Amino acid sequence: MEALLRGILEKCLDQIPKGQVASYIPELAKADPKGFGICVVTQEGQVAFAGDHSQKFTMQSIIKPMILLTALQDSGVDEVRKLVGAEATGKPFDTFNYSDQALAAGHINPMINTGAIALCTLIRGDSYEQKFERLLEMTRKLAANPHMDVDMAVYRSEKATGSKNRALAYLLKAYGMIRDDVEQVIDCYFKACSISATCLDLARIALVFACGDAALVDAAYARYVNATLMTCGMYDGSGEFALNVGFPAKSGVGGGIMGVVPRRMGIGVYSPALDKKGNSMAGIKALELLSRELELSIF
Amino acid sequence: MEALLRGILEKCLDQIPKGQVASYIPELAKADPKGFGICVVTQEGQVAFAGDHSQKFTMQSIIKPMILLTALQDSGVDEVRKLVGAEATGKPFDTFNYSDQALAAGHINPMINTGAIALCTLIRGDSYEQKFERLLEMTRKLAANPHMDVDMAVYRSEKATGSKNRALAYLLKAYGMIRDDVEQVIDCYFKACSISATCLDLARIALVFACGDAALVDAAYARYVNATLMTCGMYDGSGEFALNVGFPAKSGVGGGIMGVVPRRMGIGVYSPALDKKGNSMAGIKALELLSRELELSIF
Amino acid sequence: MEALLRGILEKCLDQIPKGQVASYIPELAKADPKGFGICVVTQEGQVAFAGDHSQKFTMQSIIKPMILLTALQDSGVDEVRKLVGAEATGKPFDTFNYSDQALAAGHINPMINTGAIALCTLIRGDSYEQKFERLLEMTRKLAANPHMDVDMAVYRSEKATGSKNRALAYLLKAYGMIRDDVEQVIDCYFKACSISATCLDLARIALVFACGDAALVDAAYARYVNATLMTCGMYDGSGEFALNVGFPAKSGVGGGIMGVVPRRMGIGVYSPALDKKGNSMAGIKALELLSRELELSIF
Amino acid sequence: MEALLRGILEKCLDQIPKGQVASYIPELAKADPKGFGICVVTQEGQVAFAGDHSQKFTMQSIIKPMILLTALQDSGVDEVRKLVGAEATGKPFDTFNYSDQALAAGHINPMINTGAIALCTLIRGDSYEQKFERLLEMTRKLAANPHMDVDMAVYRSEKATGSKNRALAYLLKAYGMIRDDVEQVIDCYFKACSISATCLDLARIALVFACGDAALVDAAYARYVNATLMTCGMYDGSGEFALNVGFPAKSGVGGGIMGVVPRRMGIGVYSPALDKKGNSMAGIKALELLSRELELSIF
Repeated sequence: MEALLRGILEKCLDQIPKGQVASYIPELAKADPKGFGICVVTQEGQVAFAGDHSQKFTMQSIIKPMILLTALQDSGVDEVRKLVGAEATGKPFDTFNYSDQALAAGHINPMINTGAIALCTLIRGDSYEQKFERLLEMTRKLAANPHMDVDMAVYRSEKATGSKNRALAYLLKAYGMIRDDVEQVIDCYFKACSISATCLDLARIALVFACGDAALVDAAYARYVNATLMTCGMYDGSGEFALNVGFPAKSGVGGGIMGVVPRRMGIGVYSPALDKKGNSMAGIKALELLSRELELSIF
Repeated sequence: MEALLRGILEKCLDQIPKGQVASYIPELAKADPKGFGICVVTQEGQVAFAGDHSQKFTMQSIIKPMILLTALQDSGVDEVRKLVGAEATGKPFDTFNYSDQALAAGHINPMINTGAIALCTLIRGDSYEQKFERLLEMTRKLAANPHMDVDMAVYRSEKATGSKNRALAYLLKAYGMIRDDVEQVIDCYFKACSISATCLDLARIALVFACGDAALVDAAYARYVNATLMTCGMYDGSGEFALNVGFPAKSGVGGGIMGVVPRRMGIGVYSPALDKKGNSMAGIKALELLSRELELSIF
Repeated sequence: MEALLRGILEKCLDQIPKGQVASYIPELAKADPKGFGICVVTQEGQVAFAGDHSQKFTMQSIIKPMILLTALQDSGVDEVRKLVGAEATGKPFDTFNYSDQALAAGHINPMINTGAIALCTLIRGDSYEQKFERLLEMTRKLAANPHMDVDMAVYRSEKATGSKNRALAYLLKAYGMIRDDVEQVIDCYFKACSISATCLDLARIALVFACGDAALVDAAYARYVNATLMTCGMYDGSGEFALNVGFPAKSGVGGGIMGVVPRRMGIGVYSPALDKKGNSMAGIKALELLSRELELSIF
Repeated sequence: MEALLRGILEKCLDQIPKGQVASYIPELAKADPKGFGICVVTQEGQVAFAGDHSQKFTMQSIIKPMILLTALQDSGVDEVRKLVGAEATGKPFDTFNYSDQALAAGHINPMINTGAIALCTLIRGDSYEQKFERLLEMTRKLAANPHMDVDMAVYRSEKATGSKNRALAYLLKAYGMIRDDVEQVIDCYFKACSISATCLDLARIALVFACGDAALVDAAYARYVNATLMTCGMYDGSGEFALNVGFPAKSGVGGGIMGVVPRRMGIGVYSPALDKKGNSMAGIKALELLSRELELSIF
């Protein structure tokens, strides 16, 4: 397996110069565009690596499935569905181009910033510090890594410059979809996006979604998250990804992608050079080759 | 299996009065809202029925995957992708609410009317009569039913009243996405939508997409179609359907739904009372119960 | 006055190379981009010319105020307002980017193609030949020129290539805003756009809108048209035009602009090099200079 | 004149029960829906009143023309036009339904909240306290009323609940259209909207826009403001208002409307029962009757 992974990285190196490291948060712009790693963890327990597998990066949007999962576990499907919908929006991840109608009817998606920010309010906790702690705890358990934590430099950078996310949060407030203090909700969200991880962490989390772990996750909720990732996990590149790769996945502008192959394996890949939709270019290509090689498409 | 199917239909009867038979084409409005049938064909060759399984109905949008498949087989992925995209639009099936940009860049989806009309031009044939014959032939082969044919009354009704589809076709012409005569292209599309089928026909077609048939369909194209159905097959209800049912499917306003369970079975269900998005209400419910009972979700 | 007009044309010559002759209809693309003329007719009866004042060009969208006026005279304000609204759309002249809601509620504007096509149905006449004849007759009377007529080459070119207008017309049909045969309605519209005129014709028509002529036009309807021109006559450049020029006007992609200075004068200007919004570049500049020189702004 | 005004108010009383007092800010909801007053100040210096002419109300959006004027005077047309456009948006006053493109290109309108918030940054002053003081000073001078001031209860209510305006301001920040601290800019805007006025104040301000006052306002800037009011002053009811009333005007959700009749008079009217677009219902009707009676339409 490791030889296969090494070969795949080799074939994807040409993607790196085509992408751009995220620059909308100053701290993210410091990432080394050449960092490139992958990790696979199979149902049978095999763990295989290639490339910069110990490189840490912030999860960014990859935390969204954990926000959704925690909201589902803490508040149930009904409360979650009152707040967010299930349809792809056909729009970029940080879109604010909603009609009044769309917002009033709760048509926002949990894999889009607006939906994820709203779902922070459904995590259990007396304060947003507690809600965040609970989310972090859940993420650590899924990754079986108690050392996962916030990258404080990225968090501060997000907090200082995240005007668009703040705009989205005040919009949610204006439409009654956030009842708490906006600054506390958005602080929780900024911290969540700034949790750092390695490819191994992503692969282990993905394995729980792929193969279940009754002690950690309700199977119905895992299916809910996987289905949501399938239709919307790669932003407005989700349809393309379904064609070319064919399993649920979630990308983040930090350069990571978490791939969930139901009943088979979890995958983590990292390469911070992004395409225009905010997805890792070499990461997508690597997943495509891996899917073809191991026949991972669920279709 | 048949007892299971009968039980499921029983449990879904309460959905029928909540829906509405399609009325935008006069001929469709004549359907009996109480018609309700289901058919399952498994990889092992088992065929099971319940309800009005011999009831004929027009395929309507269920023909779209066959249009996509035939275009792929006749013109290849590259030509198809020059014309249509792969992303969900987040909009209704007959939307004309495109920005100039969206159209110019070919962002239309093959499971939306605009995309399906455009793809008719990529089917092989010297004339649109020939292109249609080729599409019908392909559909008959997939269903293993040489008697499938056009419901002429529905076809004439569509042709006489289909102003919105005509508008979409002229729009495609205006943007250079149709080069041929609009009236001929749209006539081919109207005929395609008016092919009538039974639940058995749908189930057999679905089985080919689910389990392959090297003589009929290139495996890569079948996966392409299945992935497209997963993200966009149920219009702007595709995300919801992924959560609750969890496999590729295509609905039509004639009341049918074709369900593709990869590596396991094909399903056809029929009940013409539709929800507001144009999907069969009892049909979706039946697929949901069947998916839960037989653990058909691919997530 | 003629010296003033000559001086103004001189100062606007530099605008011509910045624009583009309309190319979406082949016949329009044949226009000489260097053609440039202006004509002013004052309330006191003075007529002044400069440049290519005898050059003929097709009215294109400049016929829209005549369509609106004739619909108002023949069917009254109530019928007109059932079909079209009064608000600027903030969108290009040939936009089809309407939401279902917008169309159903009749929010279309009479100075946008959709609205003008719909209003053709409210002109008096047993057939669309008769409706067109009535519109032509009205236009001739307003211009005091019984020789105005259709440029048959442009008309045939529009009819052969006008897919976008046809798309809009079928859309109107789909939403019940056209009840008659689409091909007849759109033929009437294509002919209307193809009526050819000179700057003198435009200036004389404008003078009737500016100063009234009880025998020809109800004063309330003239005010209705002028107000509509003020807010929407220059497409999505109407706000800019109000700032820089400051009186009601209507442009056409044939290169003409008709300017209405209430209680003072009518103006016709022609230069076929257009800006991206479809307005004559040198024409707008000439009106701006004239407005400044003679203090024509109504604000 | 006063008899005329009294008669007009009488005829408009039936409009009041059809509207709704603004409720999106708690403090505004306390307004007495029956309050109704009008004031006219003519070029010749005549002042006429009817109804509750000494009733104070907050200016809300009526302050927008003063923000635009002050920005023009302090920073010039070029800076203003870099930040805001001139076209009607066809959308409600507090719309956030912008595409990325629209924002990046500065297509926002100064009579829409987004545009007015952005323009606060172009008022002269070392701090936002100073900028606000300058705006207040300008407003007092235009109204010839040094006692005009902020209604502190409304200001606090706006500041505590104005999530949508805050969302718009953070959006502007995200797109580089606000460079300063968002909370300070929005505080300035909230205070500006909370300046209270009487019908007499509005009428006097309007008279300066209508007839000029070289000591206070550059004539070119007054025309700029008037033209902007004509195309966009009544939100997405501006086209309708142009047809039925026919002169520049600006409404606010506090219930006031300021009417500018170029070269003739300034008008202030107040009635807090609003239509769905946020315009005073009885106020619009009163202006319509007055326009008809005195032939005030500029068309």
